[in-house]
Amino acid sequence: MNSTVPLTISIMGTGAMGAALAEALVAAGHRVTVWNRTRAKAESIAGAHVASTPGDAVAAAELVILALLDDETVRASLAPVLNDLNGRTLVNLTTTTPEQARAIGEWTESANVAVLDGGIMAIPSMIGGPGAFVIYSGDGDAFARYESVFELFGGAEYVGEDLGAAALYDVSILGAMYAMFAGFRQGGAMVTTAGGSAARLASMMTPFLQAMARHLATYAPGIDSPADYVQEQSDEFTAGALDLIEKAAVESGNPTPLYGALRRALIGL
Amino acid sequence: MNSTVPLTISIMGTGAMGAALAEALVAAGHRVTVWNRTRAKAESIAGAHVASTPGDAVAAAELVILALLDDETVRASLAPVLNDLNGRTLVNLTTTTPEQARAIGEWTESANVAVLDGGIMAIPSMIGGPGAFVIYSGDGDAFARYESVFELFGGAEYVGEDLGAAALYDVSILGAMYAMFAGFRQGGAMVTTAGGSAARLASMMTPFLQAMARHLATYAPGIDSPADYVQEQSDEFTAGALDLIEKAAVESGNPTPLYGALRRALIGL
Ligand SMILES: NC(=O)c1ccc[n+]([C@@H]2O[C@H](COP(=O)([O-])OP(=O)(O)OC[C@H]3O[C@@H](n4cnc5c(N)ncnc54)[C@H](OP(=O)(O)O)[C@@H]3O)[C@@H](O)[C@H]2O)c1
Ligand SMILES: NC(=O)c1ccc[n+]([C@@H]2O[C@H](COP(=O)([O-])OP(=O)(O)OC[C@H]3O[C@@H](n4cnc5c(N)ncnc54)[C@H](OP(=O)(O)O)[C@@H]3O)[C@@H](O)[C@H]2O)c1
Repeated sequence: MNSTVPLTISIMGTGAMGAALAEALVAAGHRVTVWNRTRAKAESIAGAHVASTPGDAVAAAELVILALLDDETVRASLAPVLNDLNGRTLVNLTTTTPEQARAIGEWTESANVAVLDGGIMAIPSMIGGPGAFVIYSGDGDAFARYESVFELFGGAEYVGEDLGAAALYDVSILGAMYAMFAGFRQGGAMVTTAGGSAARLASMMTPFLQAMARHLATYAPGIDSPADYVQEQSDEFTAGALDLIEKAAVESGNPTPLYGALRRALIGL
Repeated sequence: MNSTVPLTISIMGTGAMGAALAEALVAAGHRVTVWNRTRAKAESIAGAHVASTPGDAVAAAELVILALLDDETVRASLAPVLNDLNGRTLVNLTTTTPEQARAIGEWTESANVAVLDGGIMAIPSMIGGPGAFVIYSGDGDAFARYESVFELFGGAEYVGEDLGAAALYDVSILGAMYAMFAGFRQGGAMVTTAGGSAARLASMMTPFLQAMARHLATYAPGIDSPADYVQEQSDEFTAGALDLIEKAAVESGNPTPLYGALRRALIGL
């Protein structure tokens, strides 16, 4: 805890992620209350107080953090205690769509509560360690007030007042991750049909993609200010490359809609 | 050149890539001959002999390396000199499909020539520097004989006797790179609709993807030996995540076939 004043913080939902968040807060010396639908999971968190109901969890803390399954379970858990949120800060780290995140703001408007939404870019074992970060949006004053708490989870990236912004960044990053994984899986299928191995492919692909990921910043102006941007590779070049890759996929007996979809996403054709 | 004996090596095609390859060989002290359809480009390579015809280029070297536009230009350039390849080693670094690479082997069979195919995983400015590598397949003895020459370009990865293997690894890796780029571009479109920026997105996405790229090796057994493999994430989890991402894309006014294609590539549904 160092020199910081302990705060009262509740975590609602102590599944894999909520438990990791609660443990990071306990380790830092905060006064942590946990609530979970299945009480046994909440009880397994050493050093935290267990609340029997959502109402008790909300009452116990100035900062209420949600790590529930999805938007539906957030609604179900909070509905009975909406007005008890008065004077508190609510941080919803449950994965939702941007619209769902914005709707939580409207839904809680009658309560006098500061709302932040967040997207966690880490698996539970990474929480508090290097590489983990959480993207936040919503009430900027609340973010500033609790930033040092949020940093206990990892990097804390605030992306604006729009409650939906954090989720937009979150899904964008996850979408690119799944795209990379899909490229690997399709490639693995192709090389193995010709006696190659996905392990060998990974050994070459990992450093290559790590190097190429550095180029994203150089492509950003093409999205942020397309009028001023001069493309490094022409659309014809990209189209030709993706057509050749698709041809190889078909030839190897692994046809896929993947490369056509990449082509459309990259050059709209 | 250090203590190595200079070899006679020809580069056919001195576009951006062929010029970089030729320069690396000249710098290492080899006796380099270059041929290019447009002669002026060949003449700009300091320290290399310029051949007037493909026949002169082939006659001048024990090792003939092609860096032409595509399979068609390889065919056009080599057809008149096929038999002159006798006793030489031919390395086709032109980007082709696996079937095209294999067909070059059949096409040159009557000439007594050792054939390798290669896929260059670098842009010209990276040749000879850290991070560049070239994937080779085909004649294993020829690869072993010239491996130290190939290492002048960057890492040299030999993936087997099948002439089509290098191209399969090549397109697999490029496909995953384009997938990552497509994920970024789609994400950039989504965050900018809500006042965010692609530059900010890149600053978060780059380190995240670099970390996630390390996981490819752990997913490889799922492709190489699926029967023994226990998935970390269930197909339902992946489907749920991609559905949520797709929903966010639609909500933000950026519908795309990308995430559906990723879903099919990853879990077949
Ligand atoms: N795990 C990760 O790697 C990761 C990474 C980034 C973001 N996230 C996000 O973090 C959130 C939590 O994920 P997790 O990994 O902790 O999931 P989890 O282990 O499955 O936990 C789910 C939590 O939701 C609760 N819950 C489910 N249905 C409920 C209901 N009807 N009413 C009340 N509570 C209910 C569960 O309570 P019970 O114990 O009673 O079932 C549990 O606390 C999700 O939104 C997830 O997308 C997770
Ligand atoms: N540049 C890269 O970043 C990169 C990376 C990996 C792989 N590669 C591969 O490397 C190969 C060469 O790429 P590059 O970047 O050097 O391309 P480039 O600069 O466009 O050069 C193309 C070469 O092909 C020749 N050529 C084109 N049409 C021809 C024809 N009909 N007959 C004879 N020669 C012909 C050109 O000769 P002229 O000068 O007379 O036009 C030139 O030597 C391609 O297969 C490419 O996919 C390139």
